[in-house]
Amino acid sequence: MSQRRFLVSPADLGQDLVELAPEEAAHALKVLRLAPGDGLWLLDGAGRRARAVVEAAAKGRVACRVLERETPPRSQPRLVLLCGLLKAPALELLAVKLTELAVDEVRLVLTRRAVPKPKPGHEARLRRLAAQALKQCGAAWAPLFHAPQSLVSALAAAPDPARKLILHEDETDQSLAGALARPPAAEEVWALVGPEGGFTPEEVAQAQAAGFIACGLGPLILRAETAALACAALVRFLPGAPGRA
Amino acid sequence: MSQRRFLVSPADLGQDLVELAPEEAAHALKVLRLAPGDGLWLLDGAGRRARAVVEAAAKGRVACRVLERETPPRSQPRLVLLCGLLKAPALELLAVKLTELAVDEVRLVLTRRAVPKPKPGHEARLRRLAAQALKQCGAAWAPLFHAPQSLVSALAAAPDPARKLILHEDETDQSLAGALARPPAAEEVWALVGPEGGFTPEEVAQAQAAGFIACGLGPLILRAETAALACAALVRFLPGAPGRA
Repeated sequence: MSQRRFLVSPADLGQDLVELAPEEAAHALKVLRLAPGDGLWLLDGAGRRARAVVEAAAKGRVACRVLERETPPRSQPRLVLLCGLLKAPALELLAVKLTELAVDEVRLVLTRRAVPKPKPGHEARLRRLAAQALKQCGAAWAPLFHAPQSLVSALAAAPDPARKLILHEDETDQSLAGALARPPAAEEVWALVGPEGGFTPEEVAQAQAAGFIACGLGPLILRAETAALACAALVRFLPGAPGRA
Repeated sequence: MSQRRFLVSPADLGQDLVELAPEEAAHALKVLRLAPGDGLWLLDGAGRRARAVVEAAAKGRVACRVLERETPPRSQPRLVLLCGLLKAPALELLAVKLTELAVDEVRLVLTRRAVPKPKPGHEARLRRLAAQALKQCGAAWAPLFHAPQSLVSALAAAPDPARKLILHEDETDQSLAGALARPPAAEEVWALVGPEGGFTPEEVAQAQAAGFIACGLGPLILRAETAALACAALVRFLPGAPGRA
């Protein structure tokens, strides 16, 4: 039943009988050829999902009866990625992969050396890609994509108890894995990853003044989006911290 | 100088004066507008790189004088990824990202549930993409891409002392990070990642009989290529093992 996942609004998921949106219904009927009695999952992308069954399917419309709702536990620690502006294909790759890796928030940050300009409305496309990825992986939560913001605002948004990290290629003493593993276990991680051109020394200093610890990924030179993915994978799969996947 | 990296053959890198291949020369002249006296790096993709300087540049030809050759240390542990057959875009993403993550070998493995058929000659395209990624990240080694092979051959190729792992979503007791961190530190890791449809129970048993330890990535459901990337990131960036980045 892995492909039988459909997005509905949080309000709809609260109903006993839910009608799929036209695009979702078309997929259910034309691709998956679902018929009354077939089981499926409804996801609201905001933390709840429900087992359901097709009650009626005809003329491009699909009505589903909700059988059981569940609120799966969220991945620990909560993970917020602050990411320098990247070209559209890199951001679109991140939208998909960071959804699979259960990143909680993605904040695009305007920095000096970023090459691309912000693309108006691109967050909407990122959210759509994340929604598709959500259906693929069956997760209950999609990352929250913010509109591009200044570095100052992004840094100021990090709550005090969070483990705050800035990935910086010049940092050779402190590794990302080491900074993550440092006790006590972090309940929330805010990781700042640069744009393709890196941070200016002033930006690194600004982040450090805001409590962000500089850490590196060793001698490998990664594209910015690869560093972001590696960072999310480390946070999700490092051993040792309680409650981790 | 980050973009001034050019691929040459290992034999050419041994010469004092190296002429760039026509495509590389065109990039040097038309995009980067290099002129005599400009510095650059030559990479052979097989472990050596050299600092060089443009000696002559005209009419689509660029001759470089080698100043200093170096053989950077290879990332530890040696990492071989055995990967079920994926669709072309997923494999092409892996070719790029696994180069950045300094994977040593990629072996595509034919398994029962893989959806796509092997694409004849696709390894050549993967190698070209890896070569481009190599220039981007400045690494000295590109992964060795093998032609698709049977699971039996791939399993048999793993040397006895290697840490052999099969990523399997049904495995909930042993985590990948735990299996990697188990002492003694592995000098070589062979990690088998399934195709999109996963492994059959027979394939898991076959791998286990060949000494591969089943391990999981927790409750998240990742696309096959995301699992491969996460696995490579964990191997490269896990703390603790000696010699690790």
